[in-house]
Amino acid sequence: MAEKSRIGVTGLAVMGANLARNMARRGFAVAVHNRTTAKTGEFMAEHGHEGDFTAAESLQEFVEALETPRKIVVMVKAGKPVDAVIDELAPLLDSGDIIIDAGNSHFPDTDRRAAYCAERGLRFMGIGVSGGEEGALNGPSIMPGGPLEAYGEVEEILTAIAADVDGTPCCTHVGPGGAGHYVKMVHNGIEYADIQLIAEAYDLLTHVGGLSAPEIGTIFEQWNTGDLESFLIEITGIVLGKTDERTGAPLVDVIVDQAEQKGTGRWTAIDALDLGVPLTGITEAVFARTLSALRDERRAASATLAGPAPQRAPDVDRLVEDVRQALYASKVVAYAQGFAQMRAASNANDWDLDLGAMARIWRGGCIIRAQFLNRITEAYAEHPDLDNLLMVPYFTQAVSDAQDAWRRVVATATEHGVAIPAFSSSLSYYDGYRRERGPANLIQGLRDYFGAHTYRRTDADGAFHTRWSQDGTEVSTG
Amino acid sequence: MAEKSRIGVTGLAVMGANLARNMARRGFAVAVHNRTTAKTGEFMAEHGHEGDFTAAESLQEFVEALETPRKIVVMVKAGKPVDAVIDELAPLLDSGDIIIDAGNSHFPDTDRRAAYCAERGLRFMGIGVSGGEEGALNGPSIMPGGPLEAYGEVEEILTAIAADVDGTPCCTHVGPGGAGHYVKMVHNGIEYADIQLIAEAYDLLTHVGGLSAPEIGTIFEQWNTGDLESFLIEITGIVLGKTDERTGAPLVDVIVDQAEQKGTGRWTAIDALDLGVPLTGITEAVFARTLSALRDERRAASATLAGPAPQRAPDVDRLVEDVRQALYASKVVAYAQGFAQMRAASNANDWDLDLGAMARIWRGGCIIRAQFLNRITEAYAEHPDLDNLLMVPYFTQAVSDAQDAWRRVVATATEHGVAIPAFSSSLSYYDGYRRERGPANLIQGLRDYFGAHTYRRTDADGAFHTRWSQDGTEVSTG
Repeated sequence: MAEKSRIGVTGLAVMGANLARNMARRGFAVAVHNRTTAKTGEFMAEHGHEGDFTAAESLQEFVEALETPRKIVVMVKAGKPVDAVIDELAPLLDSGDIIIDAGNSHFPDTDRRAAYCAERGLRFMGIGVSGGEEGALNGPSIMPGGPLEAYGEVEEILTAIAADVDGTPCCTHVGPGGAGHYVKMVHNGIEYADIQLIAEAYDLLTHVGGLSAPEIGTIFEQWNTGDLESFLIEITGIVLGKTDERTGAPLVDVIVDQAEQKGTGRWTAIDALDLGVPLTGITEAVFARTLSALRDERRAASATLAGPAPQRAPDVDRLVEDVRQALYASKVVAYAQGFAQMRAASNANDWDLDLGAMARIWRGGCIIRAQFLNRITEAYAEHPDLDNLLMVPYFTQAVSDAQDAWRRVVATATEHGVAIPAFSSSLSYYDGYRRERGPANLIQGLRDYFGAHTYRRTDADGAFHTRWSQDGTEVSTG
Repeated sequence: MAEKSRIGVTGLAVMGANLARNMARRGFAVAVHNRTTAKTGEFMAEHGHEGDFTAAESLQEFVEALETPRKIVVMVKAGKPVDAVIDELAPLLDSGDIIIDAGNSHFPDTDRRAAYCAERGLRFMGIGVSGGEEGALNGPSIMPGGPLEAYGEVEEILTAIAADVDGTPCCTHVGPGGAGHYVKMVHNGIEYADIQLIAEAYDLLTHVGGLSAPEIGTIFEQWNTGDLESFLIEITGIVLGKTDERTGAPLVDVIVDQAEQKGTGRWTAIDALDLGVPLTGITEAVFARTLSALRDERRAASATLAGPAPQRAPDVDRLVEDVRQALYASKVVAYAQGFAQMRAASNANDWDLDLGAMARIWRGGCIIRAQFLNRITEAYAEHPDLDNLLMVPYFTQAVSDAQDAWRRVVATATEHGVAIPAFSSSLSYYDGYRRERGPANLIQGLRDYFGAHTYRRTDADGAFHTRWSQDGTEVSTG
């Protein structure tokens, strides 16, 4: 009988197949299984020679091929299919075996499944995997959540297959239960904000700068050599520079302007609302995509709703540099918000997240990988209890240096009629956050007037109500 | 034996008590009940003389006091208490009796309870009641949801106690199931946006205009005679004009600048994210409240984060008029977004909402009551299938007239470092909505690059993928 495999992968669509290949290439013996057995055959025919694979036709065979405690990576579509696989696997497993959901599951589902498996003596992990197909094959960023001792059993494999930056794997234990999928969710949310900011920069340079897509592509190439250096800035340069084979025009100019979304950005925004964390950058990015989807309405509106007369910026070089700085400052705010959200979730769920480590494992493999993340890791290394990234000297200074340009960009876009929901909401957040005293005192006064909701005073403890419609006197309500 | 009562009210805290008094004053015989019987006694002692009340000590007595089919208004705290009352009432009731939840329940709960009651042969209504304590007593805006024939049984009572505007009651059947509570939720969300816009106007006039609270109060009084005429503008004038009895300062100047919230704004924003409707004004208003709550963080940030040097507007009269126009245009956008959301929900749930009627029943009794709502009713009367309120000539023109001032206000606030999340997100929505072609083509290009998510072309049907990292060719994916 053959040696048992170290780990199993069920679900051999491209993400699962690539993870299995990545593991095999790193020297781990991998059992592979797919519900449709033909797919397993195809996988073995195409990739069987790449490493030590054992193909299993049935789940029973699959389970028998694994050393114990078994480690089974489930890579199927998020939602009901994950539950179905767990239900089929559970009776075949032994106490202490580990089921690892590596798909894009919503973190409350992961919490629920962890409890379900625990009742059956099984260990459950939910791991976020970012980097798409290529990352899965060559080194993704991995965000594993679940019992620490279960992580200990798979750490060698996960850190071996993860991306590597400066000798450090982009993988670390995130926290218990759904913490891994939670952090992956926020990662994706930040990705929405990053992409929206890039789209707004492109829009401004097109309509106020009067520049063509390839010209803007060249600007992004240049930006990728400075503070903004990142995978997304790099590929923006490539995408904008791409010529369409059919028309000879820039490819982006023939792509339909409706952005799709798969839900993780929306989940992030909803979670922020539930937690009570201001998360304006990501949320505006999500709404911008929903607005882009209303293409027919926009076409009708464009013929009806008035805007300012189109005009070009007098100094394009200045505009380009201003937009670069606005993009950087807005990006800092988006990350500050996302990290504040993870901090709030960590506190609410007792996850004890190491936020600096989250930035560290995002430095490679994933979509938002960037040099910039080193600064975040350093910030939390120095200040583990940091409320907000804006408060560490590096980011305080970065935004301070950029703010004049940032304000000019928001004002210019506003005058020119270019929508900049993420630039402007990030700036409003910044201006709101740095206000010792904001205008919410009036909100409390109004709420007390119409709903007797009471207010607090700056000079006395307790809750107070003014009898607005009666004699106008103030009463203490305790 | 006494005559049976027309309707019953259980839950005699101030909202329930005032609804019962309102009914009795209109000539309806009302049975009253409260879990703590002492409260029923207090109610009768204080208000028993106001009308034809029957006090019931037990639910059994309460139920026996009602004519059939029974109509029972439940006015208890939203959440579990509502379920508890339903569970206690159900066994005492006869088929066809009507339970009416008049609290601030979340609409999915109402849908669930409607199904639960239907299984037991009971009819369930969820009715939104707006206007606070005073509205409940003197005439609220009422948004009843549930079976139309059940509404027929209570219509006489509800329309009699509702606010009246120009001879029309502020009450109409909204739709089945949770539709009434849904519309009430959006009403509250719009209230959040209205209030946030007022707070931003106040903040600008204070910090850029250099005006005192009473001076700004006088400006709101003037504004209340024009397009902005509304309850909230009116009471803003009163609140800003109020002198604190203890200090002699304007009262708002001693109120703590942390806004609280009870959840309906958050529900509205979450629902918009779920529906995929861009709802930036209300959502920014919710986030602004959460930001205001971070008072300690803001205090620390105010000493650290740089802003522009404070300066006054050169022409305060011009600023005041610009802010008035910006407030109006932003308000139009907030309502356009909220009504688009209700339209989407109506389509998703087959509610067949009459949006013009929703505006009509909000003209009186509720917090957002305003003359302005007549324009919305007229818009839907002429265009029942309207996609967006901005597209009817009245609002198209209003925003067109205001847009120069609106843009000046956003630019001025941005330069002066005053946070204006609702003003600026509303303008970005306007500028995004009137764009035939936005920048989301780039988003689709990037998504195709890193995730092979495909894009559509403007010149051909189907989905396409560019093999970015391979040979750069385009492939059709169907």
